Amino acid sequence: MSSATTHATGQQHVWSVAEHLEDILDTVRPLEPIELQLLDAQGCVLVEDITVPVSLPPFDNSSMDGYAVRAADVAGASEEFPAVLTVVGDVAAGRAGLLHVGPGQAARIMTGAPLPSGAEAVVPVEWTDGGLGEGPVSGMRAHSAAPEGATGEVRVHRPAEARAHVRAKGSDVKAGDRALEAGTVLGPPQIALLAAIGRGTVRVRPRPRVVVMSTGSELVQPGEELAEGEIYDSNSFALTAAARDAGAIAYRVGAVADDAETLRSTIEDQLIRADLIVTTGGVSVGAYDVVKEALTSVGDSEDETGIGAGSGVEFRKLAMQPGKPQGFGTIGPEHTPLLALPGNPVSSYVSFELFVRPAVRTLMGLPAADIHRPSARAVLKTGKAIGSPAGRRQFLRGTYDAEAGTVTPVGGSGSHLVAALAHADALIVVPEKTTSVEPGTEVDVVLLG
Amino acid sequence: MSSATTHATGQQHVWSVAEHLEDILDTVRPLEPIELQLLDAQGCVLVEDITVPVSLPPFDNSSMDGYAVRAADVAGASEEFPAVLTVVGDVAAGRAGLLHVGPGQAARIMTGAPLPSGAEAVVPVEWTDGGLGEGPVSGMRAHSAAPEGATGEVRVHRPAEARAHVRAKGSDVKAGDRALEAGTVLGPPQIALLAAIGRGTVRVRPRPRVVVMSTGSELVQPGEELAEGEIYDSNSFALTAAARDAGAIAYRVGAVADDAETLRSTIEDQLIRADLIVTTGGVSVGAYDVVKEALTSVGDSEDETGIGAGSGVEFRKLAMQPGKPQGFGTIGPEHTPLLALPGNPVSSYVSFELFVRPAVRTLMGLPAADIHRPSARAVLKTGKAIGSPAGRRQFLRGTYDAEAGTVTPVGGSGSHLVAALAHADALIVVPEKTTSVEPGTEVDVVLLG
Repeated sequence: MSSATTHATGQQHVWSVAEHLEDILDTVRPLEPIELQLLDAQGCVLVEDITVPVSLPPFDNSSMDGYAVRAADVAGASEEFPAVLTVVGDVAAGRAGLLHVGPGQAARIMTGAPLPSGAEAVVPVEWTDGGLGEGPVSGMRAHSAAPEGATGEVRVHRPAEARAHVRAKGSDVKAGDRALEAGTVLGPPQIALLAAIGRGTVRVRPRPRVVVMSTGSELVQPGEELAEGEIYDSNSFALTAAARDAGAIAYRVGAVADDAETLRSTIEDQLIRADLIVTTGGVSVGAYDVVKEALTSVGDSEDETGIGAGSGVEFRKLAMQPGKPQGFGTIGPEHTPLLALPGNPVSSYVSFELFVRPAVRTLMGLPAADIHRPSARAVLKTGKAIGSPAGRRQFLRGTYDAEAGTVTPVGGSGSHLVAALAHADALIVVPEKTTSVEPGTEVDVVLLG
Repeated sequence: MSSATTHATGQQHVWSVAEHLEDILDTVRPLEPIELQLLDAQGCVLVEDITVPVSLPPFDNSSMDGYAVRAADVAGASEEFPAVLTVVGDVAAGRAGLLHVGPGQAARIMTGAPLPSGAEAVVPVEWTDGGLGEGPVSGMRAHSAAPEGATGEVRVHRPAEARAHVRAKGSDVKAGDRALEAGTVLGPPQIALLAAIGRGTVRVRPRPRVVVMSTGSELVQPGEELAEGEIYDSNSFALTAAARDAGAIAYRVGAVADDAETLRSTIEDQLIRADLIVTTGGVSVGAYDVVKEALTSVGDSEDETGIGAGSGVEFRKLAMQPGKPQGFGTIGPEHTPLLALPGNPVSSYVSFELFVRPAVRTLMGLPAADIHRPSARAVLKTGKAIGSPAGRRQFLRGTYDAEAGTVTPVGGSGSHLVAALAHADALIVVPEKTTSVEPGTEVDVVLLG
């Protein structure tokens, strides 16, 4: 683990937010690509350049419902002096074109149908009598109800130049063109293009599988009864939701009791389905901090197959509030990254946004610019100055008003204040050296969700 | 159907984009709420005001790992003259508090553990000798490795006022407080709060189930071979992805051949799992426009259980490009809304963004402000003026640069240009009365994805 050599002082060194993040991003690597069905690849990052195999459209085709004609036959046509043509049949979309349009002839043609040989242009049905021998019509009768529309005569009321209402083969993309580049994130329009050029599957980095577990013998599943001294487990719910929100497939394991052996075996069990493991709680300086106890020795062992096969988890103090105690490292034979977050609800959520989300999005192969939450500058809107501890970067909860360019603190700095968190949409960043921020000061904000 | 009475002229009336949208939003109603497990409710809209049943925290508890003490016992303590206290045991988180801290006594206490009776404050472990009889320590040894830490003597090096490092019962939220209001969208922080107050399930509007089918005998599944005159089905893939993106659970039925009876029975089959049906293709004036053929008579019939039980589907011309032909109405015994979009890939995608997305988000119960894509004003960045047909609102594809405040057109106006669509992130709106837009003009843009 790079950190172990860079920071030989280990426990004593207080890590900056940037150092801890850098260590995580230096360690986490994008997942190996796999071939996925198109709709399973939604939101994923393409790892191949996609070349167009066949031109789009693959053949000259009509952009209108109308009649395929020879330009000379309709030259000078008007409603008073229509061109009268013999209808030789229908060309529906998807029907192979055996029809030929000779001089004095027309084929009834539908949008997207191939232009028959001999024809040079399409006149929309609204420019004709639709074969009824009366005035202009507004559309065709359904073939199933009126098959005679595909025969007889049609009167054309307006001329059409060669190529009028014809979409040329290759006018969208040509065979050999680059359709999409490696690195593209596949949203609906990109999926449209891939399907249109015939790609049923595509090579992408898969969504990371993130296993979320909270630790603490005091934790009770919501909906059950609390005994004395117990509280509800909220972290495993919040972080599972946050992991999905970041793009992951998230598995909530729920609360694990404060017993190192139970925790180790739970983690070992979960490794099989994890590209990343997130724990909460048990990382501080207490006598029951089980995550620290269970994982501190990992990586020192000779274990080649269990969780000990990773490079180990290091527990650190960060110059940040909330979120001071953090663990990070890799475990198991696949060197699966593990982030051990503190247990207070606000601490764990803020830590997720700052450290886990970028890790998830790095696993997805997203470009560096897209792995973090967006940030902005905003004017602090509050009645009195807010204090912040020296030497620690503080993240306060706030509501951001994009139009006014302001941010208003919500609730206090306590890392247990989950109600305030639920009413915030931004984190207000107070730098390490700042101990007080006056109302009206411009501050950095991290924009959530 | 309100439209049938409002616009008795039916086929002849050319609908504005706003009129068509208004008809859709007047018809579509938010789905009936259901009780969902917390994590299944992510992204959904709450329909109940949530009141806090028990205060948070539910009891006074420690915010630090340290020692619970009586304030008088540590008054004046210093490293030179420490307060020496008898350790009466451990209070771990989740353990019910049978311990009592009397004069001259301390209990070792963990973050989140209930403050024992008699104790008034917590001194962090770093302010003590940790019971080792030496200098200040940086943490506790694990209880499993050193159970003696819960007994013996501890030297406290600094005083603590009453309530120091104690989180008061109810300091986050109090029983009876309003936790969240009806109408709140449940993201990770809101899920955190609901879990924290013990809610295992919550009453929300579910995600709408959207069935997507494309129509056209020319359509081939991507990955298979194209015969002459055939093209790949891209709409059913693109719109399934777009429906998910809007918040729906989307089912892709795929391409249905141009046969009215097949289409009717396919739609009838799918009704059981649909809160909304989207079709593409077959809505224009051609002789094989099967959606129009199959659904025009729906609603006129006496049918009480089949698709005819709805109020019917009306086919319209819209003053818009692309996307002129559109169908909308309700079908089946549940009066399930159906949007019949045109078949050109760009037309169907733009129609989805303008009409289906707001319908999906209305079904979800989102507030009016959140049902549409965000829009912005931007300066048109292009070499020459762009033309637009009079009387139709045009939506051109473009790339938006938020920092520069500009939008650059991508590709032409052809509704078959799916490659350009895949490289766009905005729609440039050219109003009905405008026939030419000069470079440098400020335009409205719809921001995609």
